[in-house]
Amino acid sequence: MEELVGLREGSSGSPVSLRELWGPYPRVRRGIRGGLEWLKQKLFRVGEDWYFLMTLGVLMALISYTMNFTIGRVVRAHKWLYREIGDSHLLRYLSWTVYPVALVSFSSGFSQSITPFSGGSGIPELKTILSGVVLEDYLDVKNFGAKVAGLTCTLATGSTIFLGKVGPFVHLSVMIAAYLGRVHTKATGESENKNKQNEMLVAAAAVGVATVFAAPFSGVLFSIEVMSSHFSVWDYWRGFFAATCGAFMFRLLAVFNSEQETITSLYKTSFRVDVPFDLPEIFFFVALGAICGILSCAYLFCQRTFLGFVKTNRVISKLLATSKPLYSALAALVLASITYPPGVGRFLASRLSMKEHLDSLFDNHSWALMTRNSSPPWPEELDPQNLWFEWYHPRFTIFGTLAFFLVMKFWMLILATTIPIPAGYFMPIFIFGAAIGRLIGEALALAFPEGIVAGGVTNPIMPGGYALAGAAAFSGAVTHTISTALLAFELTGQIVHALPVLMAVLAANAVAQSCQPSFYDGTIIVKKLPYLPWIRGRKISSQRVIVGHFMNCTITTLAKDTPLEEVARVVTSTDLAKYFLVESTESQILVGTVGRAHLMQALQAEPPSWAPGHRRLRDLLAGGCPTEPVTLQLSPETSLHQAHNLFELLKLQSLPVTSLGRAVGSVSWVELKKAISNLTNPPAPK
Amino acid sequence: MEELVGLREGSSGSPVSLRELWGPYPRVRRGIRGGLEWLKQKLFRVGEDWYFLMTLGVLMALISYTMNFTIGRVVRAHKWLYREIGDSHLLRYLSWTVYPVALVSFSSGFSQSITPFSGGSGIPELKTILSGVVLEDYLDVKNFGAKVAGLTCTLATGSTIFLGKVGPFVHLSVMIAAYLGRVHTKATGESENKNKQNEMLVAAAAVGVATVFAAPFSGVLFSIEVMSSHFSVWDYWRGFFAATCGAFMFRLLAVFNSEQETITSLYKTSFRVDVPFDLPEIFFFVALGAICGILSCAYLFCQRTFLGFVKTNRVISKLLATSKPLYSALAALVLASITYPPGVGRFLASRLSMKEHLDSLFDNHSWALMTRNSSPPWPEELDPQNLWFEWYHPRFTIFGTLAFFLVMKFWMLILATTIPIPAGYFMPIFIFGAAIGRLIGEALALAFPEGIVAGGVTNPIMPGGYALAGAAAFSGAVTHTISTALLAFELTGQIVHALPVLMAVLAANAVAQSCQPSFYDGTIIVKKLPYLPWIRGRKISSQRVIVGHFMNCTITTLAKDTPLEEVARVVTSTDLAKYFLVESTESQILVGTVGRAHLMQALQAEPPSWAPGHRRLRDLLAGGCPTEPVTLQLSPETSLHQAHNLFELLKLQSLPVTSLGRAVGSVSWVELKKAISNLTNPPAPK
Repeated sequence: MEELVGLREGSSGSPVSLRELWGPYPRVRRGIRGGLEWLKQKLFRVGEDWYFLMTLGVLMALISYTMNFTIGRVVRAHKWLYREIGDSHLLRYLSWTVYPVALVSFSSGFSQSITPFSGGSGIPELKTILSGVVLEDYLDVKNFGAKVAGLTCTLATGSTIFLGKVGPFVHLSVMIAAYLGRVHTKATGESENKNKQNEMLVAAAAVGVATVFAAPFSGVLFSIEVMSSHFSVWDYWRGFFAATCGAFMFRLLAVFNSEQETITSLYKTSFRVDVPFDLPEIFFFVALGAICGILSCAYLFCQRTFLGFVKTNRVISKLLATSKPLYSALAALVLASITYPPGVGRFLASRLSMKEHLDSLFDNHSWALMTRNSSPPWPEELDPQNLWFEWYHPRFTIFGTLAFFLVMKFWMLILATTIPIPAGYFMPIFIFGAAIGRLIGEALALAFPEGIVAGGVTNPIMPGGYALAGAAAFSGAVTHTISTALLAFELTGQIVHALPVLMAVLAANAVAQSCQPSFYDGTIIVKKLPYLPWIRGRKISSQRVIVGHFMNCTITTLAKDTPLEEVARVVTSTDLAKYFLVESTESQILVGTVGRAHLMQALQAEPPSWAPGHRRLRDLLAGGCPTEPVTLQLSPETSLHQAHNLFELLKLQSLPVTSLGRAVGSVSWVELKKAISNLTNPPAPK
Repeated sequence: MEELVGLREGSSGSPVSLRELWGPYPRVRRGIRGGLEWLKQKLFRVGEDWYFLMTLGVLMALISYTMNFTIGRVVRAHKWLYREIGDSHLLRYLSWTVYPVALVSFSSGFSQSITPFSGGSGIPELKTILSGVVLEDYLDVKNFGAKVAGLTCTLATGSTIFLGKVGPFVHLSVMIAAYLGRVHTKATGESENKNKQNEMLVAAAAVGVATVFAAPFSGVLFSIEVMSSHFSVWDYWRGFFAATCGAFMFRLLAVFNSEQETITSLYKTSFRVDVPFDLPEIFFFVALGAICGILSCAYLFCQRTFLGFVKTNRVISKLLATSKPLYSALAALVLASITYPPGVGRFLASRLSMKEHLDSLFDNHSWALMTRNSSPPWPEELDPQNLWFEWYHPRFTIFGTLAFFLVMKFWMLILATTIPIPAGYFMPIFIFGAAIGRLIGEALALAFPEGIVAGGVTNPIMPGGYALAGAAAFSGAVTHTISTALLAFELTGQIVHALPVLMAVLAANAVAQSCQPSFYDGTIIVKKLPYLPWIRGRKISSQRVIVGHFMNCTITTLAKDTPLEEVARVVTSTDLAKYFLVESTESQILVGTVGRAHLMQALQAEPPSWAPGHRRLRDLLAGGCPTEPVTLQLSPETSLHQAHNLFELLKLQSLPVTSLGRAVGSVSWVELKKAISNLTNPPAPK
């Protein structure tokens, strides 16, 4: 009997049938079962989070793929309609324009009617959230449907409206992560934890980028660069895991759907591998980077100015406030009319989809050299084998069309960003950069038709490489990131231009970062979202600024011996969320904080018969009004850098400052911002 | 006259000649001059640091290239000697073994005689330094010569001793950065700043990796993952800039020296691009990753155990203490004898250099399929066109040699890591992983000679892809990093295996990280360097641990009213570096800290005539004994996670804990370590 009991325990509580006991090799089997049990425990222990991250990746991949699939169908229907409608110019024009106008106004109306948060890219808001600010409802799952439906419509307009999907996907991914986190919390009964939530959101942002581009490396790095100023290696690993799951699933679906034979990159290129570029071309790549940087500054400036203009102009702002769909429809009409292929669109390669834009710009032949002696006619129909014919015009040549494309898309893009629909702004910028690079690359190919290093085997210049560098540099400069270089390699599946592209991106960033805030920071500024600026320059002098110089000294403290009348007066006359609680009016020793809501509640619960001056705050606290301990405090000698680091890393909103235990001030984002701006622009002496 | 003065000021102080004044378009020229002035200022303002980073990159590239060049010459001389010495086996054996034995014993003797810090890779020590510990003299520039000379000798032994150069290069780079930093400080007269120094060191670590592999992306990421647990995007950008300069310069030198036609990657591969792998192969890649993970655990365990054995074994430790060159020579003799090509080395492909090892393992043909029907003879001389012949043996086939290589190199590598010479341990691990991958890849190629997905065009399995994945996975598992995947792509110049390699690396890391500390952490543990462990698991329960639970409550405080006799007694009876200074014995309100050295000095300067009990600490402080303010303090309610984050991010050693302003305890690495280890292994109830 004892042995049986032992056995039962050994097999971890499951009843042991006699057959099992008498089967061959009971010991071996027990051992195996124990091993499996151990493995199960081990996996489950590591598990939890990993399962969660995998689910997130797979879900986002499914959404991304389904959306692409739907969009593909809608676009195909539009193309069919446009092709079959006959030769009447009016009908063709209508079929070209009505479609996007209808889609955009539906997208705008539908998403805005459900929630105002679904518009735009979402990355600026997420950046704010990840820095510790609570934006109510922004991650609510009810935004989800609005964003998905709206984004699908936006993307279905194709290259007419010319918008992308990265930003909204990051938003969607973070929404799902927040939702899954809440489900998880409810299921396990654990209390909510802000740190853990934040970790999830960071990983989710990486998943969002990775499932759009099927690029796990740059997904993680791009989301880090855009979202935060500090990151932990732990988060980075989790991001990689989730992003890999997402990217793998996304590409797997393409294989299952017979679009691809195996898992490959999205915009496969076929650049020459042996000598992808001659050494002196490095200079041109760096110059291209600098040009992209300068153009990005112009773009950022115009974009921010126009966004401000839209907000302040009476007519437009009224239109936007009262009927967003109308504004969207008007803007879409303008954009669609310009891209009408038999009209101006002829010079904008507007029959190409956005994917085809990139595919054609990354083409490894030089169009300028190919059309030097022969001029192909403009094909009536799109030729899928020779997409680049779309860029060619017998009279203006490809230089004319590329330059025209750049000039027109510059303001069209800015116009498109003001339409209140869910849309990403990264992809158009990436394509714009590719066109800049292509233009310069073609010019170089024409200038040096035999390649730059003469003698022996000549290596003609590949303008596609410049397009790649231009795309990475311009998008990197606009978003102030470097990982776009890596993105360019992951998207094309070739890394032969590693150094020149990286150098172009660095040059572009050097120019852009010293002149303009990034696209996302600019939006944060225009939208007046709270943000904590960087300490730029890192000059030695900035190391000497200490908290005592800039803290807010006028703080409201409540002492334990404050009479209740006084407490009531303070609570009603100020609207802080929290008050510093000090030991006594005299000592001012900081004890903790007490929430205004709790105080109000406790005050209201007091019996109305108390004699004035009799009861004190101490009695209220003893009666159950909760206080919070101070876990971290600055002292007036803490340096600005240290305080800034603390706020950024620990996602803080404000901290008390104590000296010898006495509460002497507080520091919040407001004071930090002021101190940082004083570093670069010292205040005028009074 | 007034106008002239104005002009003079306008042209920024330079005297204005009359000719200039009367020249054409003075305004335009003044404008241009102003613009140039502005540009100069702008560049100089951003400058400083950028110039510094560029210098660092270029210097390291020069050193790396020169070292490679020298090593190439020495190796060529050795090969020549071995080839020309005749057919006598004894002479050949001697010529094969004496060379590495002499080089290694010189390397060991020379570097150790100059400084004991020059041995090993240096990364564990740097990790400790970057986490805030001061290791005296470790970054002193006098180590530089020893490390460079020693490393050159080590690497000149080639694949006999089988060691790499990454670790020492990171060390060298950091040394140069520290030196340049000191020069800069002296030149500008600015005070030293710890933050700024740290920023430089982080960037320098990236440069070290980047100049060895000409891989800026993975250089930055690898150094981040290995060195720190938190990272600021600012440092990451600077790292990219410096690493790009280094990598560019390094490859540029190769082009200038006519080794290459243009800038390309180091270990160029030519994998099939269209369908690099069939979809089901993903499973094999993940399985390969898991196998690499398990093997890495075995390797890490054996390596750590053997290192411990060497340290504790009486005979060996005595030998190591008294005559390091002898130990090195003995170990080198063993390794060289085994690799003697006509002997056992025949099965170890020992005639290949380390670069050729990688080149051959990444070969895009399947050796198993090529030798299925024909068996090439073992060539008397190395055939540069068919390096892989070295891996083939008519009787044992390539499977025998690869398996033998793995078994032998496993312990040979462990033995090599104990030799006290400057050497890197990353490259051998990378090659070892490539061999694992090749073995499994060849087995798969033989098992599925037609490729896995039958029908239509068959895509035979490329074992080279598995070698790539194996290299990335094994080296990633041993070092606990993911960026080795990216390194594999940057080294080979192809990114077609992006997803499978990344998945293999993730699988390997999942296994390795849950079982063993990383190679560098293991070395830190064996060498008993101070370190701060991670909080693993991140369970919710760990969020509830607060500082009050684990702080050190027995602190020594000095009150301002302490009599000087008492101060003298405390200072002589304890050996803390700093004491907490409190307002009074009664209140215990924390005021700041006072250094022991300063106290000692001040006490010695006191006139010997003071009456006991008369003078107090207050008088000493008033007399000029310096105190330091407390810039940051914890409270007993701070959570373990928050405290851990603070320590990691701000590179702290210890913090005081105050409650209501009173000093109640302190937290240092010791307490944090104990608290973290209690999280995973709760202390037994007493």
